[in-house]
This record gives sequence, C-alpha cells and structure tokens, in this order.
Amino acid sequence: MINFTYHNPVKIVFGKGTIPELKDLVPSGHKVMLLYGGGSIKQNGVYDQIRNALSEFDVTEFSGIEPNPRYETCMRAAAQAKEQKAQFLLAAGGGSVMDAAKFIAVAALYDEAVDPWEIMEHRKPVAAALPIGMVVTLPGTGSEMNSFSVISRESSGEKLAFGSPHCYPKFSILDPETTFSIPMRQVENGIVDTFAHVMEQYMCAAGSAPLTERQAEALLLTVIEQAPKLLANPKDYELRANLMWCATIALNGSLGCGVETEDWSSHMLGHELTARYGLDHARSLAVMMPAVHRHQLKRKLPRLVQCAARVWNISAINDLVRADKAVDRMEEFFRQTGMSTRLYEYKIDANEAADITVERLSKRGVMLGENGDLGPKEIREIFMLAK
Amino acid sequence: MINFTYHNPVKIVFGKGTIPELKDLVPSGHKVMLLYGGGSIKQNGVYDQIRNALSEFDVTEFSGIEPNPRYETCMRAAAQAKEQKAQFLLAAGGGSVMDAAKFIAVAALYDEAVDPWEIMEHRKPVAAALPIGMVVTLPGTGSEMNSFSVISRESSGEKLAFGSPHCYPKFSILDPETTFSIPMRQVENGIVDTFAHVMEQYMCAAGSAPLTERQAEALLLTVIEQAPKLLANPKDYELRANLMWCATIALNGSLGCGVETEDWSSHMLGHELTARYGLDHARSLAVMMPAVHRHQLKRKLPRLVQCAARVWNISAINDLVRADKAVDRMEEFFRQTGMSTRLYEYKIDANEAADITVERLSKRGVMLGENGDLGPKEIREIFMLAK
Repeated sequence: MINFTYHNPVKIVFGKGTIPELKDLVPSGHKVMLLYGGGSIKQNGVYDQIRNALSEFDVTEFSGIEPNPRYETCMRAAAQAKEQKAQFLLAAGGGSVMDAAKFIAVAALYDEAVDPWEIMEHRKPVAAALPIGMVVTLPGTGSEMNSFSVISRESSGEKLAFGSPHCYPKFSILDPETTFSIPMRQVENGIVDTFAHVMEQYMCAAGSAPLTERQAEALLLTVIEQAPKLLANPKDYELRANLMWCATIALNGSLGCGVETEDWSSHMLGHELTARYGLDHARSLAVMMPAVHRHQLKRKLPRLVQCAARVWNISAINDLVRADKAVDRMEEFFRQTGMSTRLYEYKIDANEAADITVERLSKRGVMLGENGDLGPKEIREIFMLAK
Repeated sequence: MINFTYHNPVKIVFGKGTIPELKDLVPSGHKVMLLYGGGSIKQNGVYDQIRNALSEFDVTEFSGIEPNPRYETCMRAAAQAKEQKAQFLLAAGGGSVMDAAKFIAVAALYDEAVDPWEIMEHRKPVAAALPIGMVVTLPGTGSEMNSFSVISRESSGEKLAFGSPHCYPKFSILDPETTFSIPMRQVENGIVDTFAHVMEQYMCAAGSAPLTERQAEALLLTVIEQAPKLLANPKDYELRANLMWCATIALNGSLGCGVETEDWSSHMLGHELTARYGLDHARSLAVMMPAVHRHQLKRKLPRLVQCAARVWNISAINDLVRADKAVDRMEEFFRQTGMSTRLYEYKIDANEAADITVERLSKRGVMLGENGDLGPKEIREIFMLAK
C-alpha cells in the first residue's frame, strides 16, 4: 500500500425530506446564490422546497447551466456573483450544475485581470473559492462529495478537469425522492458513470491495497445487483437510494486510498468524444472503457482476473480468457443499462475521432494510461477497438 | 436505507515516514501537550520522531495513560492542560491514549465547578473541546477517525462511552512501521477489535443498506485474509499497513451509513468484564460476541445467513444451520487469532459475572440489543452461553 492522505470534509445529509435542513446548513446571514440548470427543479418541486427552506435568506439566482457546463456560462455566473456579492453558492442539480458551481466559486474570487481558465489549462493551483452547498437531483458524477470539476470551453472545443481542496462542498443533501422524475436516459447515465468511476480506480490495483480493492468490488457488485432492478422499478425508493449512495462513494476518494496509480484513460478519451460529438458523458465511457481494457488486457491482466473472479464470478482455466470475459461482461452490463458501446452506433467515424483526439491530447502534451505511456499510436488502436 | 448524516472531517496521513509531517499539521504557534502511555514510544523511536518534528513548538508532556484509561488520570491531565494553557493535544499511542485525549480535550475546557463525568453518566452534550491530533502506534480501536471515547472510573468501577463532533481529531498520522514493535498480544487484540467493530454494525442490516453491507463484508473478508498472514509474518510492512487501515475504516462511521440500527451488546457486556476482571477489551469481545450471536441467532437470522454466504462461504440447506456455522467460524477465527473465547478459560464464574453485569446495567437503566429489549434474564442467558 502506498502512502496517501485522505481528507474528505463534506457533510452528507442523506434521505427523504432532508431539503428543509438547508436552513440550518447554510451559514446564517450569508447572501446565497442559487445555481441550477434548465429548470427541471421547478417542475419536480425541488426549487420550491429550497426557496421555502431559505425563506429567511437573501437569495439570488443563476439558471441555465447546461449539460457539460461551459466556461462561458460559468464566467457569466461568476460575474453575477461578484456583482451581487454572493457569499455562498448553492448548486441544485446534477454533475453539470455541481461542477459548474466549483468553477464559479473559484472564478468569483479571481483577479479581474486574469483568466481563471489557467487552473485547467496550466494546472494553476486554486487559491480560494466561495463556500458551496449542494442539493443533488441527478446522481452519477459523484461531484457532491469530491473536489473535482470538469468544464467545457466552447470557443476552443476543450473539456478539461481541475480539482482543489477549496472546492469540497460544505455539505451535500441527497434526497432520493428528487430523482424520481429524472428521464430514464439520465438514470442509465448515472449508473454507467458510477460503474466507470470505480473501474478507473480499481483497475490499477491488484493486491496492493486489499481493503480498498474489496471496497471497489463491493461497489461494483452493488451496482450490478441494483441497477437492473431500478431500471425495472424506477419508482422504488430503496433502489433509488442505493444507487444514489453508490454514485457518491464511487468518487469520494475512498477508493483511491493506498492504490498505486489510477488510470483515467477512458474518461480522457470519452471527454474528447463529448467535446466533439456531443455524446453524453456516460455514453462516451460505455464506448471507450471496453476498448481501453481490451487494448490494455495484458497489462491489466492480474486486476482483470481478480475482477473476473470476485465481481463477475467467471471461472476459466486461462487467465487471458478470464480477463477477456470480464471485459465482455462489462460491455454487456453497459448494453443492458441502455448504452450503445460502439462508435458506429453513433455514426462516428473511428478514424476521424482518433485524429481529433490525438491532435488535442498532443497539443496539451497529454499521455494516457496508468504509466502515462499511451500516445498517438495506442490511442488510434483503442479507437479501432471501439469502432 | 434509512436517512442518515455522514460527516467525518478527520485528515488521515497514512504511510511510512509520515510523522515528520506533524510540523505542518499542528497549527503553527500552538502550545502543544503531548499525551502518551507507558513509554513504549520512547523505545520504538516514535517519541524522538515527534519531538524532532515539533522542535519549533512549545511542547509539554503528560505520560502514564494506562490501558482502559481512567477518569482519574484524565482529570490530572486536564488540570495540567489548563494550568499550562495547552492549545493543542497530541495523542501518541493506541486506543487508550486516543480515547483519553478526547476526554481530556473536553475536561480541559470544563467549568471547574462541574464534573465532566456527566457527559458519560448523564449523556450531557459536549459543548467544546481542545483540538486534537493523533499519532497511532497501536491499531484496533479506530479511535483515530471517530469522535468516540471510552473511559473507566476507578472509584465506581464503571467503564462508559461518550462521543461528540467536537472530539474528531483534526488529523491522524498512521505509520505502519510504528507497529512493528507491538507485543503480539496487542496485535491479536487489534485484529479482533477491528473484526468486532464491523460485526456490531453489520449484524443489524440485511438488505436494508446493500452498499454499506457489502463494504462491511469487504472489511471482514480482508481481515480474515490478512490476519493469519500477519501473525505468521509480523515484520511484513504491507500486512501491517493493510490491518492498520482496516482498523481505521471499521469504526469511522462509514459502515453505519443507512443501516437501520446498531447492536453494541457484545461491547457493553465486554466492558463489564474488563471493568471487573481486567480482561483486555478485545479478549472480552472474543468471549461475549459468539455468545451474544448464539443467543440472538433467530433474531439475526437473515444477517447471519448473508454473512455465512458472503463472508464465510458456507453453504448449507438449512438457514439455522448456516447461521450457526457462521457463529462457529467467527469463534474459530478468534481462537486462531490467539483469543480464549470462554469465561472458564479466564477462571471467571459466569454466574458472578452475570450478577455484577446485571446489577450495573440495571442501575444505569441500560437495556441491550438492537431493539433495546435485552434485560437481566437475557443477559444471564448470554453469560451462560459464554461460560
């Protein structure tokens, strides 16, 4: 087990009817800026619950944060926060609104003369951020219990990530009842996103961090068990609650404790598909993740063999066969969860996608893989396996 | 899954060579009071590492905190902390020192005219505590990542617990190398304590919190796999690290998320054995836990059956047989870990132990069990099963 630091100060308030607790969670007297997306929270009652809970606060609003939230939108929100002297940001929505809130919280305290995009483009450390609270209505990204954010820049077509301890939410409210009205497509996305988050961390360990590995397996087993039930019974509170909690734990840092390295290749490649072709984030993962694992089968062999045995219950004499079957089962699980898993299904030309991705990643000097040694050649090969 | 709040703000710094990080972890300029036990930290080099790391701090010391730390000792430490105007408590040791630190941190800020024992005896809420940091040298109790403490009062022979959000350590340093010099008896104790902490939480859920249950099983499986290896290879860093991390996660609150109730009967009964007969905490658990589960076999049947299948890999047609075998396997595991599991092995008369326990718990009005309905009759029956 390698040395690590784990510090996750987010307060989780989980369960039905918990939104009214906002009145005690938001620091009293703070001027609140409520951030949300296209207005679904006005239809499902979440907006009213929030405004009622905050009836004694001075609340302003910024709405219209889009899926794959844009730098341009966030900068407008940050300007408004500055102008209105917001002291607390409350994000109500899914990963897009939560991720946007983190960037807005940073940008709102940025020097006018400097472009905060530098925290992504040049990995400039974040010096400060407004405090943030969250009401999660769309589980999957895990943004509610971590310090990471992914923002897209329309002008350059880039989609980049940043993270900072300053960006942990002070609290996150998770009421599974708020998820009942989510379109099924989004429910499917949340399930696959959760699964993929675990895999990106788990597929780099094998025996090096036994407890963390078993915790990752616990999460995969739970998602595999609960997801089909939820898709069949979308109004079941317990199933909603179980998958909502899985999404949070999948990316709260606990599954990285003591793990030697992580491999976010599928996410990096998926982000490029989203940036160029507009694929939902989870759907881009469902395409890229099986391809990445097929390409890296030998390198990840011990981990895939362990995953085959403990998660998929696959017995086969030959390790390569077991590993291969584990990837097949993963792709099958994605398909059962309503995903397409091949580029052709989205009418995306694999060569074109590879060209664009190689160009973008090369420009930023990014190499992929657990050892950072996957370059243009390997990326092209992975796209061919995804076609 | 029931509603819950989860908020664990402890910063964990894990790995070899991490003690020097103290100099950045303790708030600069704070007057530190170093708390430790019988002086083993002077033999294993931990003391020197700490003093070196804090060479620029004003550090006073209080040593001699005993196993099952006493109220009387803590009150002396609190008086010293008051007198010396300590601003930060640094606990270096195992559960006893860490638990003591939490009580001292509270008592040092208590009104002179009031006895802080009221937080245990009358469950008076804690209003404030000095900030605490920890250097763990003896894993098992999990005190390094929770807000709980158990203190014994010599004058009354009581052993009582309290907890408060004010008592979370600000940080805990876990360097597995510091554990190499622990006597094997203590290593065994830590393993059984860890295992027992998981069981007390896990044995009340069954299907109600699927992810949390699988995480509990992940921990039990890891302990069962790693413990015999460690007992055979006590100088193996990886094995030390794995069990140290298991001990922390076992009682950091994460295994209670969404679980309907917890049942700390074995701990409550074990505390009485320790208070009266001086049994090590873990050894008292190894006696009482199998007896409690045999007594509650029918009530805990679904959980024991799940545990039998997922943890012990027991297949039997009859649920009662499976559950019974799961308890047998647990007792076997305790014995393999060097524990006696019956009262007669300690020359303790079961009737006498039952009498004393019933009297003490009755006096405090305590009923045991997940439904709080185990009284004198049931407690006597449990002691008979442990004889």
